[in-house]
Amino acid sequence: MKPQFTPDFQKAGGLITAVTVDADDGEVLMVAYMNEEAFRLTLETGKVHYFSRSRNKLWKKGESSGNMQELVEMRVDCDLDAVVVRARQKGPACHEGYKSCFFRTVQDDGTLQTRGERLMTPEQMYGGKS
Amino acid sequence: MKPQFTPDFQKAGGLITAVTVDADDGEVLMVAYMNEEAFRLTLETGKVHYFSRSRNKLWKKGESSGNMQELVEMRVDCDLDAVVVRARQKGPACHEGYKSCFFRTVQDDGTLQTRGERLMTPEQMYGGKS
Repeated sequence: MKPQFTPDFQKAGGLITAVTVDADDGEVLMVAYMNEEAFRLTLETGKVHYFSRSRNKLWKKGESSGNMQELVEMRVDCDLDAVVVRARQKGPACHEGYKSCFFRTVQDDGTLQTRGERLMTPEQMYGGKS
Repeated sequence: MKPQFTPDFQKAGGLITAVTVDADDGEVLMVAYMNEEAFRLTLETGKVHYFSRSRNKLWKKGESSGNMQELVEMRVDCDLDAVVVRARQKGPACHEGYKSCFFRTVQDDGTLQTRGERLMTPEQMYGGKS
């Protein structure tokens, strides 16, 4: 029997980096972090969970917006401290209403240009709640 | 004139997260970190630079293996603490010789399965150097 896989949570203070991509077209939707509980719950429930560094708590993606992520496949990198999560995203991944959080490009002159697709306004997503 | 963009390096101790993807097919190749110098040098030189947390120093990708990354486009996320780097990768991105560092999937039973394409052995990449 092959050994159970455990990510290296110790390298970065209990967290691994999670890159979530659209399972269909591979676009990077967001980057966030998982602690051991978020990692376990993602695999157990098939719904993607993270650990919010700013709120210092477990965060089930979509718990306030309804825009959940269904796990399709998880990949892990060579040194076991980052995962790529292939997921089906309901609605926008970004809290600003864009499909992807990476909706701006850095131009040669150092300024930003919006290129991403805005699916909803934040008001539509959160119903006036912040 | 639009303001120059500066990432939020303060949120995570001077580093932002960089997700590097194949500019042609969008596959996630690796996850690493950039400090302000690595970010600036990447934009100035068109060669992707990172900051190595384990070696605690600036790291020009490919400096020991020759497997450089040419910058094609950089995107930044909503809270300015992560970038997606679209790059042309020479040879394998992974130090283990795979095209991507994410060459293993996490199975339902919690074990790992190798699925990625191995392009070279580490010995071929580093010529016997570690």
